[in-house]
Amino acid sequence: MSFSLNDLPLRDDLKGQSPYGAPQMDVPVVLNTNENPHPPSARLAKALAEAVAETALDLNRYPDRDAVRLREGLAAYLGHGLTAAQVWAANGSNEVLQQILQAFGGPGRTAMGFEPSYSMHPIISRGTGTAWVPVPRDADFRVDVEAALAAIEEHRPSVVFLTSPNNPTGTAVDIADIRRLAEAAPGVLVVDEAYAEFRREDTPSAVTLLDDHPRLIVSRTMSKAFALAGARVGYLAAHPAVVDALQLVRLPYHLSAVTQVVALTALDHADELLGAVDDLRAERDALVAWLRGHGFAVADSDANFVQFGEFEDRTSVWRAMLDHQVLIREVGPPGWLRVTVGTPQEMAAFRTALLAATGR
Amino acid sequence: MSFSLNDLPLRDDLKGQSPYGAPQMDVPVVLNTNENPHPPSARLAKALAEAVAETALDLNRYPDRDAVRLREGLAAYLGHGLTAAQVWAANGSNEVLQQILQAFGGPGRTAMGFEPSYSMHPIISRGTGTAWVPVPRDADFRVDVEAALAAIEEHRPSVVFLTSPNNPTGTAVDIADIRRLAEAAPGVLVVDEAYAEFRREDTPSAVTLLDDHPRLIVSRTMSKAFALAGARVGYLAAHPAVVDALQLVRLPYHLSAVTQVVALTALDHADELLGAVDDLRAERDALVAWLRGHGFAVADSDANFVQFGEFEDRTSVWRAMLDHQVLIREVGPPGWLRVTVGTPQEMAAFRTALLAATGR
Repeated sequence: MSFSLNDLPLRDDLKGQSPYGAPQMDVPVVLNTNENPHPPSARLAKALAEAVAETALDLNRYPDRDAVRLREGLAAYLGHGLTAAQVWAANGSNEVLQQILQAFGGPGRTAMGFEPSYSMHPIISRGTGTAWVPVPRDADFRVDVEAALAAIEEHRPSVVFLTSPNNPTGTAVDIADIRRLAEAAPGVLVVDEAYAEFRREDTPSAVTLLDDHPRLIVSRTMSKAFALAGARVGYLAAHPAVVDALQLVRLPYHLSAVTQVVALTALDHADELLGAVDDLRAERDALVAWLRGHGFAVADSDANFVQFGEFEDRTSVWRAMLDHQVLIREVGPPGWLRVTVGTPQEMAAFRTALLAATGR
Repeated sequence: MSFSLNDLPLRDDLKGQSPYGAPQMDVPVVLNTNENPHPPSARLAKALAEAVAETALDLNRYPDRDAVRLREGLAAYLGHGLTAAQVWAANGSNEVLQQILQAFGGPGRTAMGFEPSYSMHPIISRGTGTAWVPVPRDADFRVDVEAALAAIEEHRPSVVFLTSPNNPTGTAVDIADIRRLAEAAPGVLVVDEAYAEFRREDTPSAVTLLDDHPRLIVSRTMSKAFALAGARVGYLAAHPAVVDALQLVRLPYHLSAVTQVVALTALDHADELLGAVDDLRAERDALVAWLRGHGFAVADSDANFVQFGEFEDRTSVWRAMLDHQVLIREVGPPGWLRVTVGTPQEMAAFRTALLAATGR
């Protein structure tokens, strides 16, 4: 059949687009999607299997639509006196963000972000019919708060995204700056803290601001620090009224019984999973120092990845790295590349490949 | 804090709404959400646990974004020479339907359905900014094809939903009628076949029409016949170009590695799971005969549930049933109730309760 995408009555704004996503390639050293390099232990795998075996016997029934036990577990993990009423979960933080936009964005409304940042923010905004206003970061990839406040005043966005630590640059936002933006935002302020557990000691989480700001939403994920990217569990903390709002737009039974029990079991093993986070932070700090020592520019990183440059032709560096069996990510500002912090062995391979690829 | 939902900058069309969903109540006999009463066997539960244990060791990595193996398995299950390129899967058929509306509906576009039908069709349509045009069914809850064709001509909908077998009425649509609607629909025609496996012998699936209709989409679920409501696996069959279109709107990595392997394992046990379908069909036919024998009106059913009536005050009958520990569903046209086909023991409890509740 010669029938193709162009013959379908696709929405106008989708015509000519390509699906979003990093290449999924079979390469020995994969450092391109900010995955945690440490797989769950055999002990956790066994616990997951046992939990699923028990859940399986009831899989003919719909799951708990409100995922109450999981939300209780996530609230306990976040601490700060949070309760299940202040927590919501979905299939990855992408679905959490989509639900936020379905509730508070949409046609005739505007979302704002500070770029370069997580590229799904504008994609999900447009996917929900929400206009997207990008505001550039400063030369150090930090949010210029005065410029941000002016842009908020000008555009009156319904949703403001603030990624901290930021992806792909790694930079965090000062808590005082988050507070100023929360006070100025006329709609909801979403602090995307997907990489929060990797932040340096002096960088507090926006969760500490929730009591004072009922329109503040802090989104998190189990994909990174919990090493559970394959399980797709995103969540958020916010005022209970925000959680009520999201229940108006969530698809009923959006979160499977298996996902709920897998996430709960992982929370029971938080000590084991989060134990690797300190190692990754140390590995990251060593990587930043090594890169700077070799004359590369490096953005400060509070995440499990590092943005480095600058390259006249970053694509050729990316390809040369791939020739050396190391997959990194060509993303973010021109001239820069992003590498995920992997195991010591993977980082050794990265360093060797980078020196070869750049002739340093 | 006195801050509440009304203090949030919620979208106007959501104000005053309540979350969708049947009550989740702890009652001995639950016949309200069309679940399959047969839990997975101990053998399948063991196979699921083993599959998850293996998958768990790689959960720090993102899942296959395109779920290729699962789509291959679903295509093989559907038969008719279908391939993975013609199949798409998501977290329940609700997410499948939402993706269809994101690709082909949206602001300025219209979706149409024949009511009473699955209430998520208008909810998801409105949630994606798609206008909803309901067309009434005839007195026997069948689609009046002439009225449908006239409505399609008048409104030129981008998406037409045709539920067959229909929920909540149980009635199927003749394949010749589906063909006429597929020819007339200017956009995509979505035949929602969530209950397809329960249809009677002389009712073909719309899958048989796919070769001739590239804008036809047949949606299915593993929740019902496969007794896997808790695992949240919906899917569709369509032209490969439709699948290409959905990849423009799907959230990346929407389907977890665990969900993919749970669904694949269930497909490996299809014989066991589908073996119970024949029992449920026989139980349904016996229920229809019993209800008619006791003077109730009953809509013809090709599904695993039965719509029956008519009651002057259906709410009081629903409540009286609940007093007898049997939870059914107050849904669909006024004067009618819907009961899911359960085990022989559950149906005996239903019959006893109904006679008591109605004084027959």
